[in-house]
Amino acid sequence: MTGSRLSINRWTCRTTLVEEFLRSAVAGGVESVGLWREDVEKLGTQALRRRTDELGLRVSSLCRGGFLTASADADRTAALDDNRRAIDEAAALGAPTLVLVAGGVDRADKDIAGARERVAEGVAAIAPHAEQAGVTLSLEPLHPMFAADRAVVSTIDQALDIAEASGSPAAGVVVDTYHVWWDPYLPRAIERAASAGRLFAYQVCDWNLPLAAEPLFSRGYMGDGYIDFPAITRMVAATGYTGDVEVEIFNEDVWADPVHVAVRTIRTRYEELVAPHL
Amino acid sequence: MTGSRLSINRWTCRTTLVEEFLRSAVAGGVESVGLWREDVEKLGTQALRRRTDELGLRVSSLCRGGFLTASADADRTAALDDNRRAIDEAAALGAPTLVLVAGGVDRADKDIAGARERVAEGVAAIAPHAEQAGVTLSLEPLHPMFAADRAVVSTIDQALDIAEASGSPAAGVVVDTYHVWWDPYLPRAIERAASAGRLFAYQVCDWNLPLAAEPLFSRGYMGDGYIDFPAITRMVAATGYTGDVEVEIFNEDVWADPVHVAVRTIRTRYEELVAPHL
Repeated sequence: MTGSRLSINRWTCRTTLVEEFLRSAVAGGVESVGLWREDVEKLGTQALRRRTDELGLRVSSLCRGGFLTASADADRTAALDDNRRAIDEAAALGAPTLVLVAGGVDRADKDIAGARERVAEGVAAIAPHAEQAGVTLSLEPLHPMFAADRAVVSTIDQALDIAEASGSPAAGVVVDTYHVWWDPYLPRAIERAASAGRLFAYQVCDWNLPLAAEPLFSRGYMGDGYIDFPAITRMVAATGYTGDVEVEIFNEDVWADPVHVAVRTIRTRYEELVAPHL
Repeated sequence: MTGSRLSINRWTCRTTLVEEFLRSAVAGGVESVGLWREDVEKLGTQALRRRTDELGLRVSSLCRGGFLTASADADRTAALDDNRRAIDEAAALGAPTLVLVAGGVDRADKDIAGARERVAEGVAAIAPHAEQAGVTLSLEPLHPMFAADRAVVSTIDQALDIAEASGSPAAGVVVDTYHVWWDPYLPRAIERAASAGRLFAYQVCDWNLPLAAEPLFSRGYMGDGYIDFPAITRMVAATGYTGDVEVEIFNEDVWADPVHVAVRTIRTRYEELVAPHL
C-alpha cells in the first residue's frame, strides 16, 4: 500500500508494547503512527526514532503537552518547562506537531474564563520555542463534557482564537472527530483553521453510546457510532489538508483486541469511511 | 418571602406526587414552579391550573415539546401535532413558555446536518400556533454530549439561528447552566439572545463529576459541581432578564432526598449563589 495517509495513534493499542505496536502497524500496511510521551520516557527519543526510521514509519504527531491552566507560579513554570521538553521530543522524533490538551477548571475557584486566559498565555509563551524547533502546536479542542476536568478549550473556533492571539504561526489546532462532530459551526470552523494556515492534524474515531463509565473511553472504531465520517472528511479535504489521518481510539474493547485485529479493523474502516473522501 | 424569582422544576422532585411537590414548594417559600406534561396527562390542565392558582404559584414553564428530527412524513406530522397540543397546555396552565428539546440523530443515516434542518423547519411550523396561544417557544440547547441521542441543538447561538430563521418572535431560547456553562462564547450568546428579545427562560443546576451512568442525571444542586453561578447569573441579569430562575435537577441522590429537604437545599443554594447576582 503506497501513499496511504492512515496513521494509527499509539494509544489506540496502548496495551501492546511499543515495539509490537510499530511492527503490527507496518505489517498491516500502515505507514505512519502517532506517538506518546509515555514511550519516550521509557525508551528515549533516540531509540524510538531509530525504530520508526528502520521500519520506514512516519510520526504524525506526539501526544501530548498542554495542561496550562494552573494558576500558581511554580506550577505554571513547571508546565511551561515541560511543554518545551515535549516540543524538543517531537522535533527529535520527526513529528511535525505536538498535541496540546489545555487542562481543566480549578474546582476551588470555578473560574473557567480565567483558566482559558492562562491557556492563551501559556500557548503564546511556548510558541517561540516551537517555531525554533520546527514543530507546530496542535491545540486540541476537547468535547465540552471534558471542560471541567480536562480541557477548557472546547471548540475549534476557540482554539483558533487562542492560536491567533499567540501571534505565532506555530500555533494551530487538531480536528478530532470525537470532540467536534457535534459543532453546529463545524464546516466554517474547519475552513477557518485551514485558511489561517493552522489546521495541523486530523484525528478520527467514532462517538459510541452509551457513554463508558470513563467517557474518554467511549471512542470507537469508525462506523460503530454516530459520526458521519464521509461528511467531516470532505470538509477537511476541501480545505486542501494533505497531512495524515490519525486514528486515535480509547476503548476497553479495542484494547482487548489482539493488535493485528485492531490494525486490520482500523484499516478496513478507514478505507471504507475516510479514504474515499480525502 | 415576597418577590422571589426562584422557581423549582417539577422534575427536580419527580419522585414525589405533584400535589405534595406543589405544597412543599409553597411551604418552602417558593412562588413559582416549572411543570411537566406527565402531570398534565394524569390530571389534565384544568385540575393542575386550579391547584397552582389556589396555592398562589406561578408556572414558569412547561416541559416539553420538540423532538422534531424525525424524517418520515407520518412521524413529522405526529410530532408537529403533539407540539401544538403542548403549546395549548402551556397556555392553559398560564406558563409563558414551552421548553423544546430538539431530538437526536438517526443512527441509520448519521445526518446531523439534516436533523438540524428538520428542527428549524419544525420550529417555524409550530411558531404561528405559539403566537396565537400567547406562549413562547424556548428552544433548549442541550449539552453536546446529548447531540447523538437527544438534542441536535447544542449551543445558544445555534438555537438563536433557528429561532431567527423561523421569522416568529415567539421562538427563542432557554439558557440552562448545565448545558451551556462550558461555551467559550457564552457572554456574547446570552447578550445576543436578550438583544433579539428571545431569552425566554433561565434554568440552573450544577455540573457534577464523575458523570452518572445516565449523564442526564449528573445535574447537581448549585454549588456541588464546577459551575460559576455568580458569573453566569450576572451575564443573564446584565441583559435585563426579569423572569423566574428555574432550578431543574435530575439526580438520583436529589430524588432520594425528602421533598422538604430538597426544597430547603435549593432555596439555600439559590439565595447564596444566584439571587445576589440577579
